Amino acid sequence: MRTPYRSLLMLSMILPAALAQAADSTSTSQTMAIKDIEARLHQLEQQLSQAKIADAQAAAKAAREKQSAHHFEFHGYARSGLLASDHLTPTQGGVNITPAGSSGGHVGRLGNEKDTYVELNFEDHQSFANGAKVRYKVMMADGQDSYNDWTASTSQLNVRQVFVEMSHLPSFTGVFKDSTLWAGKRFDRNNFDIHWLDSDVVFLAGTGGGIDNVKWSNQAHSSFSIYGRNFDDITSNTIQNYTLTANNYYGPWQLMLNTMRSQNNQQRSNTGLGSSHATDSGVNGMLAYHAKSFYGLTQGSAMIAFLYGHGLGAEVKNIGSDGKLLDSANTYRLATYGTVRLTPIWSIAPALMVQRSHNRYLNGDKYDWATANLRLNQQLTENFSMQYETTYQYMDINPQQLNGNSAVKGSFYKVTIAPTFRPTAFKSFFDRPEIRLFATYMNWSQDLNHYSSSDALGGSGFHSGGQVNVGVQMETWF
Amino acid sequence: MRTPYRSLLMLSMILPAALAQAADSTSTSQTMAIKDIEARLHQLEQQLSQAKIADAQAAAKAAREKQSAHHFEFHGYARSGLLASDHLTPTQGGVNITPAGSSGGHVGRLGNEKDTYVELNFEDHQSFANGAKVRYKVMMADGQDSYNDWTASTSQLNVRQVFVEMSHLPSFTGVFKDSTLWAGKRFDRNNFDIHWLDSDVVFLAGTGGGIDNVKWSNQAHSSFSIYGRNFDDITSNTIQNYTLTANNYYGPWQLMLNTMRSQNNQQRSNTGLGSSHATDSGVNGMLAYHAKSFYGLTQGSAMIAFLYGHGLGAEVKNIGSDGKLLDSANTYRLATYGTVRLTPIWSIAPALMVQRSHNRYLNGDKYDWATANLRLNQQLTENFSMQYETTYQYMDINPQQLNGNSAVKGSFYKVTIAPTFRPTAFKSFFDRPEIRLFATYMNWSQDLNHYSSSDALGGSGFHSGGQVNVGVQMETWF
Amino acid sequence: MRTPYRSLLMLSMILPAALAQAADSTSTSQTMAIKDIEARLHQLEQQLSQAKIADAQAAAKAAREKQSAHHFEFHGYARSGLLASDHLTPTQGGVNITPAGSSGGHVGRLGNEKDTYVELNFEDHQSFANGAKVRYKVMMADGQDSYNDWTASTSQLNVRQVFVEMSHLPSFTGVFKDSTLWAGKRFDRNNFDIHWLDSDVVFLAGTGGGIDNVKWSNQAHSSFSIYGRNFDDITSNTIQNYTLTANNYYGPWQLMLNTMRSQNNQQRSNTGLGSSHATDSGVNGMLAYHAKSFYGLTQGSAMIAFLYGHGLGAEVKNIGSDGKLLDSANTYRLATYGTVRLTPIWSIAPALMVQRSHNRYLNGDKYDWATANLRLNQQLTENFSMQYETTYQYMDINPQQLNGNSAVKGSFYKVTIAPTFRPTAFKSFFDRPEIRLFATYMNWSQDLNHYSSSDALGGSGFHSGGQVNVGVQMETWF
Repeated sequence: MRTPYRSLLMLSMILPAALAQAADSTSTSQTMAIKDIEARLHQLEQQLSQAKIADAQAAAKAAREKQSAHHFEFHGYARSGLLASDHLTPTQGGVNITPAGSSGGHVGRLGNEKDTYVELNFEDHQSFANGAKVRYKVMMADGQDSYNDWTASTSQLNVRQVFVEMSHLPSFTGVFKDSTLWAGKRFDRNNFDIHWLDSDVVFLAGTGGGIDNVKWSNQAHSSFSIYGRNFDDITSNTIQNYTLTANNYYGPWQLMLNTMRSQNNQQRSNTGLGSSHATDSGVNGMLAYHAKSFYGLTQGSAMIAFLYGHGLGAEVKNIGSDGKLLDSANTYRLATYGTVRLTPIWSIAPALMVQRSHNRYLNGDKYDWATANLRLNQQLTENFSMQYETTYQYMDINPQQLNGNSAVKGSFYKVTIAPTFRPTAFKSFFDRPEIRLFATYMNWSQDLNHYSSSDALGGSGFHSGGQVNVGVQMETWF
Repeated sequence: MRTPYRSLLMLSMILPAALAQAADSTSTSQTMAIKDIEARLHQLEQQLSQAKIADAQAAAKAAREKQSAHHFEFHGYARSGLLASDHLTPTQGGVNITPAGSSGGHVGRLGNEKDTYVELNFEDHQSFANGAKVRYKVMMADGQDSYNDWTASTSQLNVRQVFVEMSHLPSFTGVFKDSTLWAGKRFDRNNFDIHWLDSDVVFLAGTGGGIDNVKWSNQAHSSFSIYGRNFDDITSNTIQNYTLTANNYYGPWQLMLNTMRSQNNQQRSNTGLGSSHATDSGVNGMLAYHAKSFYGLTQGSAMIAFLYGHGLGAEVKNIGSDGKLLDSANTYRLATYGTVRLTPIWSIAPALMVQRSHNRYLNGDKYDWATANLRLNQQLTENFSMQYETTYQYMDINPQQLNGNSAVKGSFYKVTIAPTFRPTAFKSFFDRPEIRLFATYMNWSQDLNHYSSSDALGGSGFHSGGQVNVGVQMETWF
Repeated sequence: MRTPYRSLLMLSMILPAALAQAADSTSTSQTMAIKDIEARLHQLEQQLSQAKIADAQAAAKAAREKQSAHHFEFHGYARSGLLASDHLTPTQGGVNITPAGSSGGHVGRLGNEKDTYVELNFEDHQSFANGAKVRYKVMMADGQDSYNDWTASTSQLNVRQVFVEMSHLPSFTGVFKDSTLWAGKRFDRNNFDIHWLDSDVVFLAGTGGGIDNVKWSNQAHSSFSIYGRNFDDITSNTIQNYTLTANNYYGPWQLMLNTMRSQNNQQRSNTGLGSSHATDSGVNGMLAYHAKSFYGLTQGSAMIAFLYGHGLGAEVKNIGSDGKLLDSANTYRLATYGTVRLTPIWSIAPALMVQRSHNRYLNGDKYDWATANLRLNQQLTENFSMQYETTYQYMDINPQQLNGNSAVKGSFYKVTIAPTFRPTAFKSFFDRPEIRLFATYMNWSQDLNHYSSSDALGGSGFHSGGQVNVGVQMETWF
């Protein structure tokens, strides 16, 4: 009876080995597969982490470069085209075509410009590791009535702006935290205009320095500047005018105050029926409201400004630029415009400018006028609109025979229709470029022909009774 | 006899557990490895998909920016260098040095230029989400004979071009699908030249507007434009000329037609032996063939153009720029050039221009001439070539004493050798920059000395009999 | 006794199957997991390798573009601001305000500049697949005393530089391996200045060509050039001057040699007490040492230069620009400056320039002077420093009544304090931009009032006895 036991013992002896071998046969291939997989995974993970490191390094490098690098920007404005009479002959045009023009009474510009005017802006922007930023700007400009491509003999090319701005200066804190220091020759950054009259509401420019955006609160901030300007010579003695400016903002409100001084300028004298000496000082101010709606009525934009100036300040737009003003000169000006989209097709932009300026260059003279302008855009296709503009201006001007000019009273009006091409659908009146064809009809009171023998109105072939001008023009800014 | 059964039963009872345990012992470690692997895989897959999302976002952002962003380009042309006699003294030079020059009879330019001429092009390119594209270009240029670095007193710096082009306008379809609208001051984009004579074949430029590339078929397209130009004054009354242009292409053929009108220009009169009044209208046309081979003989390029002009159109190159032309003026001009690489070392560019222009400014005058020019390039090293240029010009000019100039007949020739440096091996005659040294020998018929007392030929120290000029010059465009 | 055997046989038969099945049950799920993992791994690996290929392609594309592309750079210099008397009236200023100024005797510039001067540099850089590099540079510049923003009538805008440089030309080897070829109109690249006197030590400029950096050894290299310049006219016959230059460097040492020739210039005559004819040739030279320390004493920088010129070379700074010099003219000039940071707060920059120039325009005349200048910077905050500058100049000038000017002897001094704003903490005297306020006190010997009736000193309201000027100014370069 031993055999079975022996066989059992034998069996119990072979079992483990058999089991192990049986299990191994399948698991070995798996183990190898896993080893292989783990190797490949390791590679992948390394590659990914290397890629990440490379990305991080690139980003860091870009950031470093951005901090130290100079960044160039090219900006500009230009208009150029043909303006001709309806017989394709030379004609007259321009926003200051009327007797009111010389004292700021512009008429609408659409279909009424004959020049090629270009502004080239070259800017160098720099930002530093400490957060400070520097902006350097140079503007060159030229204005030309010649249609020729070589205009060296009549070139007006000149440098209108050269200035440096410094901002985000880490050591500037408190109300100066967001301030910008500047010096050089420039257009003041707080200037603004009524585009359709090609007239700034206030245009402060010259050479000097100042600080912008002294921030009293989230609502209130101010700018302070000094600007120098030159008047033409009196007996080879150049007169300089210095204007001190404070621009104060509270929400939509802007209050600008200017005081100016021009020593020895009272040596200057103007002559006409009488003779008056210029003044050597002046003040002016502007209260403006910049609305984000169309006069509170509907979506759109609007601006209202009231300006007053006395003495050298009586030129209320081109601050400190007119050296012939009298000590008794007083000018009041109201300027407003708005833009609104009436329908997906129709948009309109009305504008109004009214001035009363007395004792300006000679005692008893007056330069009073009112200009109403309306521009409409009728969107027809994505790239084509019809634009319409009409201007009415009334003027009552008595220069007291300054420069031999005569007192006149009367009105001027123009109507323009301008098929206009744009790269994209009309969004606002402030998108450019535009390429326009246009036809303009203008007429005026006969009396205006007699203001001056050398001005446009009443000039040869340009008398009251109706004039038609046609042309093609481009306008762009960016 | 039970024992074996019991042992068997016992055995059958322990077997499954033993088996399971044996298998597990290896498989557990594997399972854990797999779990770990799956976790790592999941991470990797997530990282990759995140990376992909980031890439996609970046690409989309770049695309968006590209659509809205302004893209600046700087382009230019310039030549500057010294031109002196072989004793290093001031000398005469220029492509229009002969009596034929004033009517377009240029001689070869190599080793024959004394000026510093520069064109600066500043371009702003914009592309919009709707596919529309805008190109704005301003060109400033200056030409100077002074070698000094401060030339304010003689500066000719002026703005030669300011225009806007709009293309790819989505609402333009059919034949206008690929058209470009433009307005402003410009050189017409269809102008082309014979470089070695520094002479355009046709140079239409001025201020106006038009439409380019109205596409009738894959073979045929046209451009239509109006250009205004100014003539100088007659009794303070500026005359303007208006040119209507149609440029029509069919394959390699170009047919250009111009008609011009300049009201009141007949008030202008030219005087010499007789006196003639200018005209107020004109026409001209050009038929040109632009070949992609060297006159059909071998690889290279060639162009042949025949021009005819009448009245104000009798200035066949500078379209509408010459206000002194008579109603009876007739000009015929043939212009051709080709370029070919003869061997890896030698390349040549022959050119020919012939003109017959009668009754131009005074009845009975004539400005007839023929110019043959040949430029060769001998490539010696990757950066150095020898260039050779020879010009022969025959002229028969009778100005009828206009401006006191006398009738002359005769020939002029010049030979120039110019060691030339380039950044890369010579590929074509139209690659720049080049820096060249040169020596030029020129001679001419004695008769030509007597054309004018104020022109170069016959001037002090510059008489027929042979002149040698030497110099160094750079030329570039990009 | 068979039963046990049978049961054993049976058992040995079922064992393997049982074993296999047991092992499989666990391993099947693992095998499937592994298969799945392998699939996912394969995907990942493919994605990664595709990403790598894309990266490589992008890098290659960027490299290709970089090789062929044009790279634009905008650089510039500008200063602009107000300079007024302490009563805000027009005043006199400028580094050449004294009688020594016309012969190069500049005084310190800080708080002593009244102009808006701007240089605009437009550069096109090109690099080619063969390693060659091209640099094209155009500089426009304008200088203006007018504060107005529209200065067309007094614009000095002109093109001061237009040149091409070629370097890394593969076929240039040996000593020419690192050489740069150039031609055009330019400021020589080896010019250098004393900034605080706004005076170059040597200013070679004009139109010509040359080769820079012919490398004899790691220590020694040379530049060779020819420059042309124009003198003003003598009886409508423009005179040109040609200057041959060799600039040789050995370590910190620079030896510059110039020889010039201006045929027919001896026709020019200067008149005063006597009359003398100009010369038609000249030579000059400069030995300079450019130190990397403050005169070997401490960290900083320093430069010492000795210049001698004879004949047309007696204008030792503006090489070849003065056509009135006599054959017997001799000028000796010593120029040196250094900069050093004394403490984290204080940095100083002393400068000295001394000249002896006899028989310059008339026999027996003399233009002798010595100028000492010191500028200090006191760093107060990261963005604000006080700058101080003082100049003392002694002059002994006897023009022999040239242009009616009288012999004078005496001294001039000025002291300036200038609160200065910078975007970052002061690092060196050569970082810009700066925006400065300043007040300057200047005084001079009464005798100097009598030098000329048309110069600044002694002019109306600008007499010896002390003058105070104030102003604001920006200065930048990049």
